[in-house]
Amino acid sequence: MDKMDLIKELSQKNEKKIIFFVIDGLGGITYPEKGKTELEAAITPNLDKLAQESLCGLSVPISYGITPGSGPSHLSLFGYDPLKHDIGRGVLEALGLGLTMTKNDLAARANFATLDYEKNIVVDRRAGRPATEKTVELCKFLQEKIPNIGDVEIIIKPGKGHRFVVLFRGEGLGEKIYDNDPQKDGHEPHTIREHSPDNESKKTSHIVNQFIDKAMSLIKDNGAMNYVLVRGFSKYPAIPSMKEAYKLTPAAIAVYPMYKGLAQLVGMDILKVPGETLSDEIALLKKEYNNYDFFYVHSKETDAFGEDGNFEGKVNKLNEIDKIIPELLSLDPDVLVITGDHSTPAVIKGHSWHPVPLLLRSKYKVLNTGVKRFTEQECLKGYLGIFSAQDVMPLAMANTFKLAKYGA
Amino acid sequence: MDKMDLIKELSQKNEKKIIFFVIDGLGGITYPEKGKTELEAAITPNLDKLAQESLCGLSVPISYGITPGSGPSHLSLFGYDPLKHDIGRGVLEALGLGLTMTKNDLAARANFATLDYEKNIVVDRRAGRPATEKTVELCKFLQEKIPNIGDVEIIIKPGKGHRFVVLFRGEGLGEKIYDNDPQKDGHEPHTIREHSPDNESKKTSHIVNQFIDKAMSLIKDNGAMNYVLVRGFSKYPAIPSMKEAYKLTPAAIAVYPMYKGLAQLVGMDILKVPGETLSDEIALLKKEYNNYDFFYVHSKETDAFGEDGNFEGKVNKLNEIDKIIPELLSLDPDVLVITGDHSTPAVIKGHSWHPVPLLLRSKYKVLNTGVKRFTEQECLKGYLGIFSAQDVMPLAMANTFKLAKYGA
Repeated sequence: MDKMDLIKELSQKNEKKIIFFVIDGLGGITYPEKGKTELEAAITPNLDKLAQESLCGLSVPISYGITPGSGPSHLSLFGYDPLKHDIGRGVLEALGLGLTMTKNDLAARANFATLDYEKNIVVDRRAGRPATEKTVELCKFLQEKIPNIGDVEIIIKPGKGHRFVVLFRGEGLGEKIYDNDPQKDGHEPHTIREHSPDNESKKTSHIVNQFIDKAMSLIKDNGAMNYVLVRGFSKYPAIPSMKEAYKLTPAAIAVYPMYKGLAQLVGMDILKVPGETLSDEIALLKKEYNNYDFFYVHSKETDAFGEDGNFEGKVNKLNEIDKIIPELLSLDPDVLVITGDHSTPAVIKGHSWHPVPLLLRSKYKVLNTGVKRFTEQECLKGYLGIFSAQDVMPLAMANTFKLAKYGA
Repeated sequence: MDKMDLIKELSQKNEKKIIFFVIDGLGGITYPEKGKTELEAAITPNLDKLAQESLCGLSVPISYGITPGSGPSHLSLFGYDPLKHDIGRGVLEALGLGLTMTKNDLAARANFATLDYEKNIVVDRRAGRPATEKTVELCKFLQEKIPNIGDVEIIIKPGKGHRFVVLFRGEGLGEKIYDNDPQKDGHEPHTIREHSPDNESKKTSHIVNQFIDKAMSLIKDNGAMNYVLVRGFSKYPAIPSMKEAYKLTPAAIAVYPMYKGLAQLVGMDILKVPGETLSDEIALLKKEYNNYDFFYVHSKETDAFGEDGNFEGKVNKLNEIDKIIPELLSLDPDVLVITGDHSTPAVIKGHSWHPVPLLLRSKYKVLNTGVKRFTEQECLKGYLGIFSAQDVMPLAMANTFKLAKYGA
């Protein structure tokens, strides 16, 4: 029996409510010029007071030294073993765009690009960054002209800017194929090839090459948007839903496609946010509060500032987020978890392996460990210590008595 | 996918350099008469300053409560699961003596002993501690007289003092056999027996008994060195090299055979130290610094003093080691790890299960956790907390950006 089996066996339904507020890329490390982390530099009286009243710790998304993408790190937070459930980027993107996937589907991320047809060189991998409307229009055209390749149904859905998603729906498709993206402008696109000798992957590389060829013949005179790049091929994974695993009725409140996709993958209802700000998300949370017993609320911008190496931007965003905390508290959830999916230190300009500050506010305060602020260093002093992100869900469930006793 | 598979998938080559400085048996516990651990009693201004600037923690070699031998504890430090890769003492000894092993080899540690042939009693398990030259000579004689037993080739290599190694090279040998060592002087030697009914182990017990009988008939009149004890039977294990697993070009700088053997087992180049002191080792490190991207530097004496229960001896050795730290720092490695393979508290007079102080100095300082000294107690306050020694390699790799992001 693995841990998920145990949780599944012990989980029980009740009326208590859990909110996971995930501040993307929350964790930081000391920024040399400032001598502080982003959280240390931020002015966060509400988060600090909350940390004083909560169980605090630092959560390890995957394991020491491993820098996670958003997919695996969210799965961990939702209590799943990310090494067991490997979720492809194509699947995440497809779900994020609202596509419903079946077990016969292979998803791929795609985008329009500019090909120099004479030299066979990709001159702009983003097709001059077209407006979303242009991509919507061209996707519609391609969808009409390429409803299928042989026995494989083709489903095309536009995303933002130059991006779209292609679902290949059919029997016997495999995901072990390389993409055609040369990764850099000025290089030849690749022919799709499988990297595994199985028949499924062979069939798929054949189908995808045909798809690219058909698309080329249809759009080659369409200015900058005259070529397609497809990558991130992935099949829909078998993963138990949070309803099955935890007997929860979970909802996701997120703006960015990938996070909605992830939430859908684990069986959350995706609530439509009437806007793009955190305030819009919190308003929706309040409105839907009686309809669910688990809420995942996602805030993206901190991660983006971290990726840009913008220390001040991330600090300011944290200052803003702090102001909204009283609204979360006004709902008085039985458990409120505030953490990140991973660290994105401005000094590293990307995701990193560093453990992430976490607070879990429960009706059952355990100890007063003297944590003063919601920072990396103060959370290290907390009751939870450094622990696996996969243990956050069980802790939240326990603190709402949603887990029965194990054994007599 | 297990963690090693993950690391293997994510590892990437770059120019950054990692040094692991392993102070054998480093960790201690409070020595009652002194009220301090060895590290607390030592005067270590350089290590203390380094601890203040580093990530600190206590590493658990195997798991809570488990006292490791040097083999498993080093495997952990090198990132391998020591429960998955069980390395026999015979193999370590053979590699340490510079023998190259094949997959058909069974290694055994051996030594000359004194048998009272009339009473069939081992009267001195160490044959009066002969000079190494005598063992060299007698091994040469035995090797000439016993080139093989049936289809099994015999390879004999002298070690220090009364010790030597026997390799049994042939098809179908098994390692599940007991030894002939009575463990105490004044007892009868055992006949070699298998403790598993497999044919390989049966064949082997038969071969080894013949080897002992032949040796007896050849040396029975050779004074104190008139008998052989063989033990620690072990086959060469299949273990991925650090080159495969981490894409590193690793080198080992160690004086004692076992540590060189261990390093060779995980695919390190064994550099020949021109002397026996830590200064000799550091001089070699400087000379070879441009030729490798990972260095394992081993210092043995602290462990020996701990084993002897010599608190002051271990403290003095730590004082000496501290003086050499500036030389390590002068190389300015991208990551410098200083730790032990296990604890050897003088009060316990042997290896122990206690977590081992560790510092990891990275270009990416995380936080100022207020660690003041390189001691057990201060490391406990550190950012790494109490963590598995198997996570040291991934952390070192992460801090040198030798691990790609996991998932999208």
